[in-house]
Amino acid sequence: MAQPSCSAAQLAQYFGPNATNAAAAASLICDQFTAVSMQYKDTKHAVDSTYLLFSAYLVFSMQLGFAMLCAGSVRAKNTMNIMLTNVLDAAAGGLFYYLFGFAFAFGVPSNGFIGRHFFGLKQVPSEAQDFDYSNFLYQWAFAIAAAGITSGSIAERTQFVAYLIYSSFLTGFVYPVVSHWIWSTDGWASAFNTGNLLFGSGVIDFAGSGVVHMVGGIAGLWGALIEGPRIGRFDHTGRAVALRGHSASLVVLGTFMLWFGWYGFNPGSFNKILVYYDESGNYYGQWSAVGRTAVTTTLAGCTAALTTLFGKRILSGHWNVTDVCNGLLGGFAAITAGCSVVEPWAAIVCGFFASLVLIGCNKLAEKVKYDDPLEAAQLHGGCGAWGVIFTALFAKKEYVKQVYGSGRGHGLLMGGGGKLLAAHVIQILVITGWVSATMGPLFFVLNKMKLLRISPEDELAGMDLTRHGGFAYAYEDDESHKHGIQLKRIEPNASSTPTTE
Amino acid sequence: MAQPSCSAAQLAQYFGPNATNAAAAASLICDQFTAVSMQYKDTKHAVDSTYLLFSAYLVFSMQLGFAMLCAGSVRAKNTMNIMLTNVLDAAAGGLFYYLFGFAFAFGVPSNGFIGRHFFGLKQVPSEAQDFDYSNFLYQWAFAIAAAGITSGSIAERTQFVAYLIYSSFLTGFVYPVVSHWIWSTDGWASAFNTGNLLFGSGVIDFAGSGVVHMVGGIAGLWGALIEGPRIGRFDHTGRAVALRGHSASLVVLGTFMLWFGWYGFNPGSFNKILVYYDESGNYYGQWSAVGRTAVTTTLAGCTAALTTLFGKRILSGHWNVTDVCNGLLGGFAAITAGCSVVEPWAAIVCGFFASLVLIGCNKLAEKVKYDDPLEAAQLHGGCGAWGVIFTALFAKKEYVKQVYGSGRGHGLLMGGGGKLLAAHVIQILVITGWVSATMGPLFFVLNKMKLLRISPEDELAGMDLTRHGGFAYAYEDDESHKHGIQLKRIEPNASSTPTTE
Amino acid sequence: MAQPSCSAAQLAQYFGPNATNAAAAASLICDQFTAVSMQYKDTKHAVDSTYLLFSAYLVFSMQLGFAMLCAGSVRAKNTMNIMLTNVLDAAAGGLFYYLFGFAFAFGVPSNGFIGRHFFGLKQVPSEAQDFDYSNFLYQWAFAIAAAGITSGSIAERTQFVAYLIYSSFLTGFVYPVVSHWIWSTDGWASAFNTGNLLFGSGVIDFAGSGVVHMVGGIAGLWGALIEGPRIGRFDHTGRAVALRGHSASLVVLGTFMLWFGWYGFNPGSFNKILVYYDESGNYYGQWSAVGRTAVTTTLAGCTAALTTLFGKRILSGHWNVTDVCNGLLGGFAAITAGCSVVEPWAAIVCGFFASLVLIGCNKLAEKVKYDDPLEAAQLHGGCGAWGVIFTALFAKKEYVKQVYGSGRGHGLLMGGGGKLLAAHVIQILVITGWVSATMGPLFFVLNKMKLLRISPEDELAGMDLTRHGGFAYAYEDDESHKHGIQLKRIEPNASSTPTTE
Repeated sequence: MAQPSCSAAQLAQYFGPNATNAAAAASLICDQFTAVSMQYKDTKHAVDSTYLLFSAYLVFSMQLGFAMLCAGSVRAKNTMNIMLTNVLDAAAGGLFYYLFGFAFAFGVPSNGFIGRHFFGLKQVPSEAQDFDYSNFLYQWAFAIAAAGITSGSIAERTQFVAYLIYSSFLTGFVYPVVSHWIWSTDGWASAFNTGNLLFGSGVIDFAGSGVVHMVGGIAGLWGALIEGPRIGRFDHTGRAVALRGHSASLVVLGTFMLWFGWYGFNPGSFNKILVYYDESGNYYGQWSAVGRTAVTTTLAGCTAALTTLFGKRILSGHWNVTDVCNGLLGGFAAITAGCSVVEPWAAIVCGFFASLVLIGCNKLAEKVKYDDPLEAAQLHGGCGAWGVIFTALFAKKEYVKQVYGSGRGHGLLMGGGGKLLAAHVIQILVITGWVSATMGPLFFVLNKMKLLRISPEDELAGMDLTRHGGFAYAYEDDESHKHGIQLKRIEPNASSTPTTE
Repeated sequence: MAQPSCSAAQLAQYFGPNATNAAAAASLICDQFTAVSMQYKDTKHAVDSTYLLFSAYLVFSMQLGFAMLCAGSVRAKNTMNIMLTNVLDAAAGGLFYYLFGFAFAFGVPSNGFIGRHFFGLKQVPSEAQDFDYSNFLYQWAFAIAAAGITSGSIAERTQFVAYLIYSSFLTGFVYPVVSHWIWSTDGWASAFNTGNLLFGSGVIDFAGSGVVHMVGGIAGLWGALIEGPRIGRFDHTGRAVALRGHSASLVVLGTFMLWFGWYGFNPGSFNKILVYYDESGNYYGQWSAVGRTAVTTTLAGCTAALTTLFGKRILSGHWNVTDVCNGLLGGFAAITAGCSVVEPWAAIVCGFFASLVLIGCNKLAEKVKYDDPLEAAQLHGGCGAWGVIFTALFAKKEYVKQVYGSGRGHGLLMGGGGKLLAAHVIQILVITGWVSATMGPLFFVLNKMKLLRISPEDELAGMDLTRHGGFAYAYEDDESHKHGIQLKRIEPNASSTPTTE
Repeated sequence: MAQPSCSAAQLAQYFGPNATNAAAAASLICDQFTAVSMQYKDTKHAVDSTYLLFSAYLVFSMQLGFAMLCAGSVRAKNTMNIMLTNVLDAAAGGLFYYLFGFAFAFGVPSNGFIGRHFFGLKQVPSEAQDFDYSNFLYQWAFAIAAAGITSGSIAERTQFVAYLIYSSFLTGFVYPVVSHWIWSTDGWASAFNTGNLLFGSGVIDFAGSGVVHMVGGIAGLWGALIEGPRIGRFDHTGRAVALRGHSASLVVLGTFMLWFGWYGFNPGSFNKILVYYDESGNYYGQWSAVGRTAVTTTLAGCTAALTTLFGKRILSGHWNVTDVCNGLLGGFAAITAGCSVVEPWAAIVCGFFASLVLIGCNKLAEKVKYDDPLEAAQLHGGCGAWGVIFTALFAKKEYVKQVYGSGRGHGLLMGGGGKLLAAHVIQILVITGWVSATMGPLFFVLNKMKLLRISPEDELAGMDLTRHGGFAYAYEDDESHKHGIQLKRIEPNASSTPTTE
C-alpha cells in the first residue's frame, strides 16, 4: 500500500458536471482512507512496541536490583554465591523460557491448564494471537523475577546444584502454568478469558501479586522450611539472632533499582498504551490508566515505607533503613495485583496494611523459627497475598471495565459484591496448593538426596571460599610488594602454590 | 467514534449522475476525516504520555544517584543515616506531594503566588488544564530532588527528626510555591504565563537551575550554617581538613546515575514530544529540540568535568575523580535553566564557567568555615545561580519562540537586550529571599529546640551505630564459628545478650 | 498546514446536482489528506526520536556499567584511577565527538574513507541526510564505549596522561573512521552504501561487533602488549597468578548494567521503529525486528553465560561468578554484528561458541604471558571477531533484505554463498590493520617517551595513592575521636600536617 497522496486535478475530473467517473472518484478517496488506516496500524504497532520493549528493559533491570539487594542482605562470605544465582536466574531463565516456558504460559489455543504453542518461539510473531517478540521478552523478565524471589529465601545455605535444579523447574514449568491460569486468554481463572469466567468474574491479578510474588515466596517458604535455619540464626535458648547483611549500601541500591524497575512491571503490564476508552479522541484513555498505575504503585510503596519507618521505630528503637527498604518493597508487592484498577487513595490503604502484614509475618517467622535471609516468603508471599485480597476489596467498577471489559466483578467495598473476592480466595488457595504440591516435593527429594543443604563446615566458612573460588572482596592488599603472593590472606588455598587462573 | 472505514460502492452511489445523495457523500467523507482526526489525538496522547512517563522514570532514577553519591561522600559511620534520608525524600515526598504539593504548584486557575486545585489528585486527569497522572509523577520526581540536595548539605550531624520536619516542609510547601511562580501558567514570574509577563518576558528556567537546584542549595546553606561544621572539619588553627567520603566507587556510581537521570530531567521537561514548530510536516520540530536539549546537557557536563580535571590538577596536584564528578554535576545544574533555548556551543561556555564557579564557591566556603559534606550549596546553589544568569545571556531568540511562544525576552549577548536578564536577576533574588525566609527560621527554631544537631558523642561515634541500629558494612566475619555471636564487633550492644530482631 | 477539519455542509454544496464546484470539492478533500499526511510525518518523527533518544540513554548507561565492571575487576588501590578514565571517556569523548568525531564518521556527502561535514554539529539537523541531534547523541554513546574497552586492557599500570592522549585519538579519529567505512551511506565497506557494494554485498555489522568491539579490543591489545604485564601477574617460573579484582559485587553490578544498556546498543541500532516491511499495515514490521533483535541479544548472552558456567566448572572446579559475567558479555559482543539478521536459534549457536572463543583466548593469553586485567582484548576483540564471522554464516536472507535492502549477501550456512563471508573476512583484516597501524605506533611512541607505564614503585603502591589523592575506600574510622586526624591510616601523607582540601 502506497503512502497516501491525493491529486486534486484528478478528483476534479471525476466530479465534473456529468460525473461519469463517480466510481473512480469514490475508489480514489477510499484508497486514501485505507492507506491512512494502514499507517495508523503501523503507528500503533510502533508506539505499543516501543512502550512494551522499554517496559521490558525496566523489568529486566529489577534483576540487577534483586542481585544487589540479595548481595547486601547476606554476609560477605556468601556474596558471590547469591549473585551467581541472580545472574543465572536471568541466563538459564532465558533459555528455558524460550524453549518451553513461554509456550506453557501463553501458547494459545490451548486448554485452561497449560499452553501448547510457541515452543522455541515457533510461529511468533503471531497476528492471530497478537504475540510479538516483545511480548516474549516482557514475559521472560517476569519469569526470572519469580525465581529470584525464591533464591532469597534459601540464601547462605543451599547447594549450588540444588539451586540450578529448582530454578529451572520453577521458571520453566511451575510459574508458567500459574501465569497461564491467570493471564492467558485461555486460562481457567483468567479475567481476560472471553468464554467462561470463574465465578462470573475471573481473577484480577494485573501484574502478579499472586502470579509472581506469591509463587516465588511460597516456593522459597518450602525450600527454607525444609532445609531449616542458618547456623546461628537462633541461639541455644531459641532466641532469634540477627545475622546482618554485609552492606546496607547494596541493599539501598538494590531497593531503588527495584523501585525503578517496578515502573516497567506494573504500568508495563498494560502491554499497549495506544488504546482509547469509550471513544476515540477522549483526553482520558489507556495512556491515563498507565499513568495512574504508576501513581498507585508509587503511593503504595511510599506509604508502606513510612509505616514501616515509624512501626519499626516503636518496636526496635531504631530508624532502620533496611527495614524501610523491605517495607517499601512489601508495599510494591501488594499493589501489584490491583495497581491498574484502584484509586490512588486506595493505594495508600494498600501500602499501610502491607507494612503491617510484613511486620506481622516477620514476627510469626521468628516465633516458628523460620529463617529467610531476604524475608522473601514474608514479603512476597505475605504482602502478595494481601494484595490479592486488597484488589478484591477496592477494585473500582469503571476501571475494571476499561482494563478487562465489562462483566467482571469489582471490589466488595466499592459495591461490587463478593464475586471477585470469591475468585481471589480461590486464587490464593490454588496458587498455594500448586506451588506446594510441586516445589515442596522437589525440595524434599533434593534434601533426601543430600543435594539441598551445604555442610556445616562450608556454611561457617562461607560458600564463596568453598564453592566459588574465593571471597568477593579484597580491600586490603598489604602484601602486594611480595610478587606473586597477592591477596594471600583471602585466597582459599593461600599456603599452596600460586593458583593459575 | 468508530474506526475509519470506507466503502467505495457506497460512495459511488452518492456520486451517481444525478447526485441526489451529495449530502450523504459529504457526511460520509467528513466522518472519516473526523475519525482520523480522533485517532491522531489518541496517538498524540499515547506518544506524549510514553515520552513523559519514561522521562519521569529517569528523573526518579536520580534519587538512586543521589543516594549513592551521598553515601559515598560521607564517612562509613553515617552511611545508613544519609541513605535513609534519601529513601524518605522519595517516600514522604510521594505522600506530601500527592496531598498538597502538586496542588500548590500546578493547581489552576489560581493566583500568581500559589495553586489551589488538584489536592489529592482530585479532578485529575483534567483536559481543561491538560494535567494527567503522568504530569503528577514527573513533577513528584522533581520535588524529591530538591529535598535530596538539601540533605547533602547537613549530612553527618543532623538529627533524624529534624530531617523529617524540614524535608516535609520543603517538598510540601517551599518548593511547590517556587515552582508555581516560575512554571505554572498562572505564576507571576512564569514565561508560560499567557497574561502579564514579568518585564514583558517572564523567567526562562526550563528545567529548574533556580526552581530546583537553587532552592535545594539555599535551603542546605541555611541548615549547614546554623548547625555549623562537622567536628574536625577545621582544625584548631582554622585550617580545613578533608573529611573524605568512604567510597569513591559509590560516588562514581551515583554520578553516572545522576547523569543518566538528567536526560529525563532536562529533555523531559518538554513534557510532550509530538509538537511541530511553524508547520506540520517539517523535519525540524519539538523532537529535534528535545534532542538538542540532550546534547546541550551533555556538552555542559562534559566541559565542566574536563575543566575541573585540569583546574584541580593545577590546584591540588592530583587527578581527582570525586572532584571531577562534582564538576560534572555542577555543569549539569547550570545548563538546566537554559538547556532548551541555547546552542550546543553555548553549552560549552556554560560548563566551563560552571566549573570555575564551583571551584570558587568551594574556596570561599573554606575561607568562611562553611562545611557542606556534599558541596551541595556550592554546587546546586552556586552553579544553579550561574545557570540562571547564563540563560539570560545566551538564550537564542528562535528557540525561545519555539519553546515559550513569541514575545519573551532572549539573551543579552544574542541581541535580546536586558529584559530577560532583569527577570532572571529578580528570580535569583526572590528565590534566595523566599527560601531564606522560610527555611532559615525553620532551621533556627529547630536549633533552638535542640532538635537540629546531634550530640558530639553521637557525631564521633557515627549516627549509624547510635540511631540506625548498626554499621552499614560487615565485611569481616571472623567469629562466625562461634554460633550466635556473629558480627560482634560491629553490633552497637555487643556486650549485651544477643539482640532479637 | 492547519489541523484536518471537515465541513459536511460545505462539501455538500460542491456535490450539488450541477456540481459546478467540483474543483473546490476536490481541493478541499485533498487538502485534508495532505494535512493528515503531514501529521503522520510529525508522528513518525516523534515516535522515532523517542525510540532513538531512549536507546541512546540506555547505551550511555553502559558507561556506568563499564565503570563498575572495571572498578570491581582491578585491585582496590587502582579503583580511583580506572573510574576516572571511565568518567573521562564520556566527558572528553563528548567534546571530541562533537567537534570532529561525528563529522569524520557520518559527514556526508563524502568519500568512502572519511566524512567531512557536521563539524561542531554544523548543519544538523539535516533533513537531506536525515541526521538529527538524536543521531549525534546515539553515536556519541557508541564512541565512548570503544574507548572504555581499551582502558580495561591497560588498567593498573598506565600513566594517566597516556590515557588522555590515546583516548582522545581513539574517540576522535580511529573509531570514527572505521564507523564511516562500515556504517555511513558513503562508506567503502558499508552495506548501507547505495552505490558500489563491497563484493556485491557490503559488510553487515549491525551494531558493531567489529566497528566497536574489535576496535576497542585491538587497541587494548597493543597497549597491553607494549607495556607488558602487571608486576606479579606471572611468577618467576612463568606461571600465571590471578590478581583478583577487589569487588565481585561491582563486577556483577557492572555486568547487569551493561546487559541493560545492550538493549539500547543492539535493538537501538535500527534508529527508527516506525518502519513497515513489504506493505503498510502488516502485523510484522520493523517493530517486530527490533523485538527479535532484543531476543537474539538476550539468548546469545544467556547461552554464553551458561556455557562458561559449566566450562569453567570443569576447568577450574569452581562455580565462578566473574567468569560467568565475562562469558555473558562475550556472548553479547559476538551477537552484536548479526543481532538483527539472524534467527533466535542461531543466537544460541553464537553464544555457545562465543564462550569457547573467550575461554580459548584466555588460555592463549596466559600462554603468551599477555596480561589484560579486564580480558578486554580477548572478550571484545576475540568474541567480536567471532561475531563478524558468525553473521556471515547465519544471516537470514529475508531479514537482510528487510534491514539492508535487497541485493546484499546472506549467510553461507543459510544458502547465501560466500559473498558476505568474503566481505567480513576483509572487515576483520582491515579493522585489525587500521587499528594496529594507528594505535600500535601511538602506544610505541608513548612508551619510548616514558609516558606509558608508571614506575614499579607507583604500581606496587597503587595509583590512587600516588596520583589520585588517596585510596578509594575508608571503611574504618577508629580515630575519629581525635579531631583533625581522621582517616590517618589511609591518607597518603599521614605524617605531615593535616591536608587542606
